[in-house]
Amino acid sequence: MFASDSRTNAGVDHISTYAKMHTFCGDGMRFFCLLSAGNLATSRAVVTHLQRDMEEHAEVSLQSVSRLTEAADYIGRVSREQQQKHSKGARGPNYESGASFILGGQIQGQPPSILLIYPEGNYIPNSRHSPFLQIGEEKYGKPILDRIIQPSVSLEVAARCALVSMDSTMRSNASVGPPIDLLLYSAGTQRPGSMVTFGEDDDYLRVLRRSWQDSLKASFNQLPKIPLHSASVRLVDV
Amino acid sequence: MFASDSRTNAGVDHISTYAKMHTFCGDGMRFFCLLSAGNLATSRAVVTHLQRDMEEHAEVSLQSVSRLTEAADYIGRVSREQQQKHSKGARGPNYESGASFILGGQIQGQPPSILLIYPEGNYIPNSRHSPFLQIGEEKYGKPILDRIIQPSVSLEVAARCALVSMDSTMRSNASVGPPIDLLLYSAGTQRPGSMVTFGEDDDYLRVLRRSWQDSLKASFNQLPKIPLHSASVRLVDV
Repeated sequence: MFASDSRTNAGVDHISTYAKMHTFCGDGMRFFCLLSAGNLATSRAVVTHLQRDMEEHAEVSLQSVSRLTEAADYIGRVSREQQQKHSKGARGPNYESGASFILGGQIQGQPPSILLIYPEGNYIPNSRHSPFLQIGEEKYGKPILDRIIQPSVSLEVAARCALVSMDSTMRSNASVGPPIDLLLYSAGTQRPGSMVTFGEDDDYLRVLRRSWQDSLKASFNQLPKIPLHSASVRLVDV
Repeated sequence: MFASDSRTNAGVDHISTYAKMHTFCGDGMRFFCLLSAGNLATSRAVVTHLQRDMEEHAEVSLQSVSRLTEAADYIGRVSREQQQKHSKGARGPNYESGASFILGGQIQGQPPSILLIYPEGNYIPNSRHSPFLQIGEEKYGKPILDRIIQPSVSLEVAARCALVSMDSTMRSNASVGPPIDLLLYSAGTQRPGSMVTFGEDDDYLRVLRRSWQDSLKASFNQLPKIPLHSASVRLVDV
Protein backbone atom coordinates (compact mmCIF):
# COMPACT_ATOMS: atom_id res chain seq x y z
CA MET A 1 0.00 0.00 0.00
CA PHE A 2 1.41 3.36 -1.05
CA ALA A 3 0.06 6.81 -0.19
CA SER A 4 1.16 10.29 -1.15
CA ASP A 5 -0.18 13.83 -1.04
CA SER A 6 0.23 16.31 -3.90
CA ARG A 7 1.20 19.58 -2.25
CA THR A 8 4.52 21.05 -3.22
CA ASN A 9 5.90 24.35 -2.09
CA ALA A 10 8.93 26.47 -2.64
CA GLY A 11 7.85 29.32 -0.40
CA VAL A 12 4.27 30.51 -0.03
CA ASP A 13 4.16 31.95 -3.55
CA HIS A 14 4.88 28.62 -5.15
CA ILE A 15 2.38 26.16 -3.73
CA SER A 16 1.08 23.84 -6.37
CA THR A 17 -0.09 20.32 -7.02
CA TYR A 18 2.08 17.55 -8.38
CA ALA A 19 1.73 13.80 -8.12
CA LYS A 20 4.47 12.33 -5.93
CA MET A 21 3.67 8.75 -6.88
CA HIS A 22 4.96 7.11 -10.03
CA THR A 23 4.60 3.54 -11.23
CA PHE A 24 6.85 1.60 -13.58
CA CYS A 25 6.50 -1.66 -15.53
CA GLY A 26 3.50 -3.55 -14.10
CA ASP A 27 3.43 -6.16 -16.86
CA GLY A 28 2.96 -9.12 -14.53
CA MET A 29 6.73 -9.75 -14.50
CA ARG A 30 7.87 -6.77 -12.45
CA PHE A 31 6.25 -3.76 -10.83
CA PHE A 32 7.71 -0.69 -9.12
CA CYS A 33 6.07 2.20 -7.29
CA LEU A 34 8.18 5.26 -6.45
CA LEU A 35 7.16 7.95 -3.93
CA SER A 36 9.19 11.14 -3.68
CA ALA A 37 9.74 13.96 -1.18
CA GLY A 38 12.04 16.94 -1.08
CA ASN A 39 13.21 18.98 -4.04
CA LEU A 40 10.58 18.73 -6.78
CA ALA A 41 12.95 19.45 -9.65
CA THR A 42 15.31 16.70 -8.47
CA SER A 43 12.55 14.13 -7.97
CA ARG A 44 10.97 14.84 -11.36
CA ALA A 45 14.35 14.72 -13.06
CA VAL A 46 14.93 11.31 -11.46
CA VAL A 47 11.56 10.01 -12.70
CA THR A 48 12.23 11.32 -16.21
CA HIS A 49 15.67 9.72 -16.18
CA LEU A 50 14.25 6.34 -15.10
CA GLN A 51 11.65 6.47 -17.84
CA ARG A 52 14.20 7.42 -20.49
CA ASP A 53 16.57 4.64 -19.45
CA MET A 54 13.75 2.14 -19.98
CA GLU A 55 12.72 3.61 -23.32
CA GLU A 56 16.31 3.66 -24.56
CA HIS A 57 16.96 0.13 -23.26
CA ALA A 58 19.92 1.42 -21.26
CA GLU A 59 22.34 -1.12 -19.79
CA VAL A 60 20.87 -0.49 -16.33
CA SER A 61 17.19 0.38 -16.00
CA LEU A 62 14.18 -0.69 -13.97
CA GLN A 63 13.58 -3.21 -16.74
CA SER A 64 17.05 -4.75 -16.34
CA VAL A 65 17.66 -4.87 -12.57
CA SER A 66 17.34 -8.30 -11.03
CA ARG A 67 16.48 -7.30 -7.46
CA LEU A 68 14.63 -4.48 -5.71
CA THR A 69 17.83 -3.52 -3.87
CA GLU A 70 19.60 -3.23 -7.23
CA ALA A 71 16.80 -0.88 -8.35
CA ALA A 72 17.33 1.17 -5.16
CA ASP A 73 21.08 1.40 -5.84
CA TYR A 74 20.38 2.57 -9.38
CA ILE A 75 17.78 5.17 -8.29
CA GLY A 76 20.09 6.41 -5.53
CA ARG A 77 22.85 6.91 -8.09
CA VAL A 78 20.55 8.78 -10.50
CA SER A 79 19.29 10.93 -7.59
CA ARG A 80 22.81 11.92 -6.52
CA GLU A 81 23.72 12.82 -10.11
CA GLN A 82 20.63 15.02 -10.51
CA GLN A 83 21.27 16.74 -7.17
CA GLN A 84 24.85 17.54 -8.14
CA LYS A 85 23.66 18.97 -11.44
CA HIS A 86 21.11 21.17 -9.68
CA SER A 87 23.47 22.27 -6.93
CA LYS A 88 25.87 23.84 -9.44
CA GLY A 89 23.33 26.48 -10.38
CA ALA A 90 22.14 26.93 -6.80
CA ARG A 91 20.65 30.25 -5.80
CA GLY A 92 22.26 30.34 -2.37
CA PRO A 93 24.02 28.30 0.29
CA ASN A 94 20.69 27.14 1.73
CA TYR A 95 19.33 25.75 -1.51
CA GLU A 96 18.25 22.17 -0.82
CA SER A 97 18.49 19.98 -3.87
CA GLY A 98 18.00 16.73 -1.92
CA ALA A 99 15.14 14.30 -2.49
CA SER A 100 14.10 11.14 -0.67
CA PHE A 101 12.28 8.22 -2.21
CA ILE A 102 10.30 5.20 -1.15
CA LEU A 103 10.64 2.40 -3.66
CA GLY A 104 8.28 -0.54 -3.43
CA GLY A 105 7.28 -3.36 -5.68
CA GLN A 106 8.09 -6.87 -6.67
CA ILE A 107 10.00 -8.84 -9.28
CA GLN A 108 8.45 -12.18 -10.19
CA GLY A 109 9.75 -15.03 -8.06
CA GLN A 110 10.96 -12.66 -5.32
CA PRO A 111 9.10 -11.36 -2.26
CA PRO A 112 7.56 -7.87 -2.41
CA SER A 113 9.49 -5.18 -0.53
CA ILE A 114 9.74 -1.47 0.25
CA LEU A 115 12.93 0.57 0.63
CA LEU A 116 13.65 4.14 1.72
CA ILE A 117 16.29 5.84 -0.47
CA TYR A 118 18.07 8.78 1.20
CA PRO A 119 19.27 11.91 -0.62
CA GLU A 120 22.79 10.47 -0.22
CA GLY A 121 21.77 7.54 -2.42
CA ASN A 122 21.94 4.82 0.22
CA TYR A 123 18.83 3.04 1.48
CA ILE A 124 17.16 1.00 4.22
CA PRO A 125 14.49 -1.68 3.92
CA ASN A 126 11.36 -2.04 5.99
CA SER A 127 11.51 -4.74 8.68
CA ARG A 128 9.25 -6.65 11.02
CA HIS A 129 9.75 -3.93 13.63
CA SER A 130 9.37 -1.11 11.09
CA PRO A 131 6.51 -2.32 8.92
CA PHE A 132 6.05 1.11 7.32
CA LEU A 133 8.34 3.74 5.85
CA GLN A 134 7.74 7.51 5.62
CA ILE A 135 9.40 10.39 3.78
CA GLY A 136 8.74 14.13 3.80
CA GLU A 137 6.71 15.85 6.52
CA GLU A 138 6.43 12.64 8.51
CA LYS A 139 6.29 13.43 12.23
CA TYR A 140 2.71 14.70 12.61
CA GLY A 141 1.29 11.53 11.07
CA LYS A 142 3.64 8.99 12.64
CA PRO A 143 1.88 8.38 16.01
CA ILE A 144 -1.26 6.85 14.48
CA LEU A 145 0.83 4.65 12.16
CA ASP A 146 2.88 3.51 15.17
CA ARG A 147 -0.32 2.50 16.94
CA ILE A 148 -2.14 0.74 14.09
CA ILE A 149 0.24 -0.57 11.43
CA GLN A 150 1.54 -4.09 11.94
CA PRO A 151 2.79 -6.53 9.30
CA SER A 152 -0.52 -8.42 9.56
CA VAL A 153 -2.98 -5.58 8.77
CA SER A 154 -5.11 -5.78 5.63
CA LEU A 155 -4.54 -3.57 2.62
CA GLU A 156 -7.75 -1.66 3.42
CA VAL A 157 -6.71 -1.00 7.03
CA ALA A 158 -3.28 0.14 5.87
CA ALA A 159 -4.91 2.49 3.34
CA ARG A 160 -7.43 3.84 5.85
CA CYS A 161 -4.67 4.43 8.42
CA ALA A 162 -2.60 6.25 5.80
CA LEU A 163 -5.56 8.57 5.14
CA VAL A 164 -5.99 9.25 8.88
CA SER A 165 -2.25 9.88 9.19
CA MET A 166 -2.38 12.30 6.24
CA ASP A 167 -5.41 14.02 7.79
CA SER A 168 -3.53 14.67 11.04
CA THR A 169 -0.63 16.07 9.04
CA MET A 170 -2.83 18.30 6.88
CA ARG A 171 -4.52 19.78 9.94
CA SER A 172 -1.21 20.67 11.56
CA ASN A 173 0.89 21.67 8.57
CA ALA A 174 0.03 23.63 5.44
CA SER A 175 2.77 22.02 3.35
CA VAL A 176 0.75 18.81 2.99
CA GLY A 177 -2.55 18.78 1.07
CA PRO A 178 -4.93 16.91 -1.21
CA PRO A 179 -5.41 15.27 -3.61
CA ILE A 180 -4.16 12.14 -1.90
CA ASP A 181 -3.17 9.19 -4.03
CA LEU A 182 -3.42 5.63 -2.74
CA LEU A 183 -2.14 2.58 -4.53
CA LEU A 184 -3.10 -0.88 -3.30
CA TYR A 185 -0.71 -3.47 -4.62
CA SER A 186 -1.56 -7.16 -4.25
CA ALA A 187 1.54 -9.28 -3.66
CA GLY A 188 2.40 -11.73 -6.40
CA THR A 189 0.59 -9.88 -9.20
CA GLN A 190 3.42 -7.64 -10.41
CA ARG A 191 0.68 -5.29 -11.64
CA PRO A 192 -0.21 -1.84 -10.24
CA GLY A 193 -3.57 -2.94 -8.91
CA SER A 194 -5.91 -0.12 -7.99
CA MET A 195 -5.07 3.53 -7.62
CA VAL A 196 -7.55 5.73 -5.77
CA THR A 197 -7.37 9.52 -5.74
CA PHE A 198 -9.10 11.52 -3.02
CA GLY A 199 -9.71 15.17 -3.81
CA GLU A 200 -10.32 17.85 -1.16
CA ASP A 201 -14.12 17.51 -1.55
CA ASP A 202 -14.24 13.76 -1.78
CA ASP A 203 -17.30 12.51 0.12
CA TYR A 204 -15.55 9.58 1.76
CA LEU A 205 -12.56 11.67 2.83
CA ARG A 206 -14.90 14.27 4.35
CA VAL A 207 -16.84 11.61 6.29
CA LEU A 208 -13.62 9.95 7.43
CA ARG A 209 -12.13 13.24 8.68
CA ARG A 210 -15.30 14.21 10.56
CA SER A 211 -15.74 10.73 12.08
CA TRP A 212 -12.14 10.66 13.23
CA GLN A 213 -12.30 14.15 14.72
CA ASP A 214 -15.56 13.33 16.54
CA SER A 215 -14.42 10.00 17.90
CA LEU A 216 -11.04 11.41 18.98
CA LYS A 217 -12.82 14.13 20.93
CA ALA A 218 -15.22 11.60 22.47
CA SER A 219 -12.33 9.27 23.34
CA PHE A 220 -10.42 12.13 24.91
CA ASN A 221 -13.41 13.23 26.96
CA GLN A 222 -13.81 9.70 28.29
CA LEU A 223 -10.22 9.44 29.51
CA PRO A 224 -9.87 9.32 33.29
CA LYS A 225 -9.39 12.81 34.71
CA ILE A 226 -6.10 13.72 36.36
CA PRO A 227 -6.65 12.90 40.08
CA LEU A 228 -5.39 16.29 41.18
CA HIS A 229 -6.80 15.89 44.67
CA SER A 230 -5.85 12.26 45.21
CA ALA A 231 -3.06 11.14 47.53
CA SER A 232 -1.75 8.82 44.81
CA VAL A 233 -0.52 11.82 42.81
CA ARG A 234 2.66 13.45 43.95
CA LEU A 235 1.28 16.94 44.33
CA VAL A 236 3.82 19.53 45.33
CA ASP A 237 2.78 22.99 46.35
CA VAL A 238 5.88 24.91 45.45
CA MET B 1 -0.92 25.12 32.27
CA PHE B 2 2.69 24.17 31.60
CA ALA B 3 4.05 20.73 30.73
CA SER B 4 7.57 19.46 30.11
CA ASP B 5 9.38 16.15 29.81
CA SER B 6 12.80 15.50 31.34
CA ARG B 7 14.74 13.64 28.67
CA THR B 8 17.90 15.26 27.43
CA ASN B 9 20.32 13.79 24.97
CA ALA B 10 23.56 14.71 23.35
CA GLY B 11 23.89 11.54 21.34
CA VAL B 12 22.85 8.11 22.56
CA ASP B 13 25.65 7.93 25.13
CA HIS B 14 24.45 11.03 26.92
CA ILE B 15 20.78 10.51 27.65
CA SER B 16 19.84 11.75 31.07
CA THR B 17 17.14 13.41 33.08
CA TYR B 18 16.88 17.12 33.78
CA ALA B 19 13.93 19.26 34.66
CA LYS B 20 13.08 21.65 31.84
CA MET B 21 10.61 23.66 33.91
CA HIS B 22 11.68 26.44 36.25
CA THR B 23 9.58 28.82 38.29
CA PHE B 24 10.48 32.31 39.55
CA CYS B 25 8.98 34.68 42.11
CA GLY B 26 5.48 33.45 42.96
CA ASP B 27 5.00 35.77 45.91
CA GLY B 28 1.46 36.81 44.97
CA MET B 29 2.82 39.89 43.16
CA ARG B 30 4.41 38.25 40.15
CA PHE B 31 4.96 34.72 38.92
CA PHE B 32 6.97 33.31 36.00
CA CYS B 33 7.32 29.80 34.64
CA LEU B 34 10.07 29.09 32.10
CA LEU B 35 10.21 25.96 29.90
CA SER B 36 13.31 25.24 27.86
CA ALA B 37 14.31 23.16 24.84
CA GLY B 38 17.48 22.81 22.83
CA ASN B 39 21.02 23.05 24.14
CA LEU B 40 20.98 22.02 27.81
CA ALA B 41 24.11 23.94 28.78
CA THR B 42 22.67 27.13 27.29
CA SER B 43 19.27 26.75 28.92
CA ARG B 44 20.76 25.97 32.34
CA ALA B 45 23.17 28.89 32.04
CA VAL B 46 20.19 31.14 31.28
CA VAL B 47 18.27 29.90 34.35
CA THR B 48 21.34 30.39 36.56
CA HIS B 49 21.81 33.88 35.15
CA LEU B 50 18.17 34.81 35.82
CA GLN B 51 18.42 33.55 39.40
CA ARG B 52 21.68 35.41 40.03
CA ASP B 53 20.31 38.67 38.64
CA MET B 54 17.45 38.43 41.14
CA GLU B 55 19.72 37.56 44.07
CA GLU B 56 22.08 40.39 43.23
CA HIS B 57 19.22 42.87 42.68
CA ALA B 58 20.54 43.61 39.19
CA GLU B 59 19.14 46.64 37.40
CA VAL B 60 17.13 44.33 35.13
CA SER B 61 15.82 41.07 36.54
CA LEU B 62 12.57 39.11 36.67
CA GLN B 63 11.92 41.05 39.88
CA SER B 64 12.27 44.43 38.13
CA VAL B 65 10.52 43.98 34.77
CA SER B 66 7.15 45.65 34.50
CA ARG B 67 5.65 43.49 31.75
CA LEU B 68 5.86 39.88 30.58
CA THR B 69 7.11 41.07 27.18
CA GLU B 70 9.91 42.97 28.97
CA ALA B 71 10.81 39.71 30.74
CA ALA B 72 10.88 37.94 27.35
CA ASP B 73 13.20 40.64 25.92
CA TYR B 74 15.51 40.24 28.92
CA ILE B 75 15.56 36.42 28.71
CA GLY B 76 16.14 36.57 24.94
CA ARG B 77 19.13 38.84 25.53
CA VAL B 78 20.60 36.57 28.22
CA SER B 79 20.04 33.55 25.96
CA ARG B 80 21.86 35.13 23.03
CA GLU B 81 24.79 36.07 25.28
CA GLN B 82 25.07 32.53 26.62
CA GLN B 83 24.89 31.03 23.13
CA GLN B 84 27.66 33.27 21.90
CA LYS B 85 29.82 32.29 24.88
CA HIS B 86 29.24 28.60 24.19
CA SER B 87 29.75 28.87 20.44
CA LYS B 88 33.30 30.18 20.90
CA GLY B 89 34.44 26.84 22.32
CA ALA B 90 32.35 24.83 19.84
CA ARG B 91 33.49 21.35 18.90
CA GLY B 92 32.52 21.62 15.27
CA PRO B 93 30.53 23.55 12.70
CA ASN B 94 27.39 21.55 13.51
CA TYR B 95 27.43 22.31 17.23
CA GLU B 96 24.03 23.71 18.11
CA SER B 97 24.17 26.11 21.04
CA GLY B 98 20.63 27.41 20.50
CA ALA B 99 17.84 27.13 23.04
CA SER B 100 14.15 28.00 22.86
CA PHE B 101 11.97 29.00 25.78
CA ILE B 102 8.33 29.32 26.67
CA LEU B 103 7.79 32.02 29.24
CA GLY B 104 4.45 32.20 30.99
CA GLY B 105 3.10 33.90 34.04
CA GLN B 106 1.51 37.05 35.32
CA ILE B 107 2.36 40.35 36.95
CA GLN B 108 -0.30 41.67 39.33
CA GLY B 109 -2.81 43.91 37.57
CA GLN B 110 -1.95 42.56 34.13
CA PRO B 111 -3.45 39.62 32.24
CA PRO B 112 -1.63 36.27 32.31
CA SER B 113 0.24 35.41 29.12
CA ILE B 114 2.60 32.95 27.44
CA LEU B 115 5.39 33.78 24.99
CA LEU B 116 7.72 31.69 22.84
CA ILE B 117 11.31 32.98 22.87
CA TYR B 118 13.39 31.90 19.87
CA PRO B 119 17.15 31.16 19.97
CA GLU B 120 17.62 34.52 18.19
CA GLY B 121 16.17 36.27 21.23
CA ASN B 122 12.95 37.51 19.64
CA TYR B 123 9.56 36.15 20.66
CA ILE B 124 5.90 35.63 19.74
CA PRO B 125 2.86 35.57 22.02
CA ASN B 126 0.02 33.07 22.01
CA SER B 127 -3.21 34.27 20.40
CA ARG B 128 -6.85 33.34 20.10
CA HIS B 129 -6.02 31.26 17.03
CA SER B 130 -2.88 29.79 18.60
CA PRO B 131 -4.00 29.07 22.14
CA PHE B 132 -0.96 26.89 22.88
CA LEU B 133 2.78 27.14 22.27
CA GLN B 134 5.27 24.29 21.86
CA ILE B 135 9.05 24.04 21.79
CA GLY B 136 11.40 21.12 21.20
CA GLU B 137 10.26 17.87 19.59
CA GLU B 138 6.83 19.29 18.87
CA LYS B 139 5.42 17.75 15.68
CA TYR B 140 4.40 14.28 16.90
CA GLY B 141 2.26 15.73 19.68
CA LYS B 142 0.76 18.68 17.80
CA PRO B 143 -2.23 17.00 16.08
CA ILE B 144 -4.04 16.14 19.32
CA LEU B 145 -3.42 19.65 20.70
CA ASP B 146 -4.79 21.12 17.46
CA ARG B 147 -7.94 19.06 17.89
CA ILE B 148 -8.60 19.63 21.59
CA ILE B 149 -7.04 22.84 22.88
CA GLN B 150 -9.18 25.97 22.67
CA PRO B 151 -8.96 29.11 24.79
CA SER B 152 -12.02 27.93 26.74
CA VAL B 153 -10.78 24.52 27.95
CA SER B 154 -10.36 23.90 31.70
CA LEU B 155 -6.96 23.59 33.35
CA GLU B 156 -7.56 19.86 33.86
CA VAL B 157 -8.46 19.27 30.19
CA ALA B 158 -5.38 21.25 29.11
CA ALA B 159 -3.21 19.16 31.44
CA ARG B 160 -4.74 15.86 30.32
CA CYS B 161 -4.31 16.81 26.66
CA ALA B 162 -0.68 17.74 27.31
CA LEU B 163 -0.10 14.26 28.79
CA VAL B 164 -1.75 12.58 25.78
CA SER B 165 0.34 14.74 23.45
CA MET B 166 3.52 13.77 25.35
CA ASP B 167 2.48 10.11 25.20
CA SER B 168 2.17 10.22 21.40
CA THR B 169 5.59 11.86 21.22
CA MET B 170 7.23 9.36 23.59
CA ARG B 171 5.91 6.41 21.56
CA SER B 172 7.29 7.78 18.31
CA ASN B 173 10.54 9.38 19.44
CA ALA B 174 13.14 8.24 21.96
CA SER B 175 14.38 11.76 22.71
CA VAL B 176 11.31 12.54 24.83
CA GLY B 177 10.70 10.70 28.10
CA PRO B 178 9.39 10.80 31.65
CA PRO B 179 9.22 12.10 34.27
CA ILE B 180 6.71 14.63 32.98
CA ASP B 181 6.17 17.81 34.97
CA LEU B 182 2.87 19.65 34.90
CA LEU B 183 2.21 23.02 36.46
CA LEU B 184 -1.33 24.30 36.81
CA TYR B 185 -1.34 28.04 37.30
CA SER B 186 -4.57 29.78 38.34
CA ALA B 187 -4.91 33.23 36.78
CA GLY B 188 -4.82 36.13 39.21
CA THR B 189 -2.94 34.32 41.99
CA GLN B 190 0.64 35.14 40.96
CA ARG B 191 1.62 31.94 42.82
CA PRO B 192 2.93 28.71 41.26
CA GLY B 193 -0.15 26.71 42.15
CA SER B 194 0.23 22.95 41.91
CA MET B 195 3.04 21.04 40.31
CA VAL B 196 2.47 17.38 39.50
CA THR B 197 5.25 15.03 38.45
CA PHE B 198 4.44 11.80 36.60
CA GLY B 199 7.17 9.16 36.66
CA GLU B 200 7.42 6.33 34.15
CA ASP B 201 5.57 3.94 36.47
CA ASP B 202 2.95 6.37 37.66
CA ASP B 203 -0.38 4.53 37.98
CA TYR B 204 -2.47 7.30 36.46
CA LEU B 205 -0.10 7.80 33.52
CA ARG B 206 -0.15 4.06 32.83
CA VAL B 207 -3.97 3.93 32.89
CA LEU B 208 -4.17 7.04 30.70
CA ARG B 209 -1.78 5.63 28.11
CA ARG B 210 -3.55 2.28 27.94
CA SER B 211 -7.03 3.88 27.78
CA TRP B 212 -5.93 6.19 25.00
CA GLN B 213 -4.29 3.41 22.99
CA ASP B 214 -7.38 1.18 23.37
CA SER B 215 -9.90 3.85 22.48
CA LEU B 216 -7.83 5.07 19.51
CA LYS B 217 -7.73 1.53 18.15
CA ALA B 218 -11.47 1.11 18.73
CA SER B 219 -12.18 4.49 17.11
CA PHE B 220 -10.04 3.58 14.14
CA ASN B 221 -11.75 0.22 13.71
CA GLN B 222 -15.14 1.91 13.69
CA LEU B 223 -14.22 4.35 10.91
CA PRO B 224 -16.06 3.75 7.65
CA LYS B 225 -14.08 1.46 5.38
CA ILE B 226 -12.70 2.82 2.11
CA PRO B 227 -15.42 2.05 -0.48
CA LEU B 228 -12.98 0.43 -2.88
CA HIS B 229 -15.72 -1.15 -4.93
CA SER B 230 -18.08 1.81 -5.01
CA ALA B 231 -18.68 3.95 -8.06
CA SER B 232 -18.32 7.10 -5.96
CA VAL B 233 -14.58 6.50 -5.66
CA ARG B 234 -12.49 7.42 -8.63
CA LEU B 235 -10.88 4.02 -9.06
CA VAL B 236 -8.31 3.91 -11.83
CA ASP B 237 -6.82 0.65 -13.01
CA VAL B 238 -3.49 1.85 -14.29
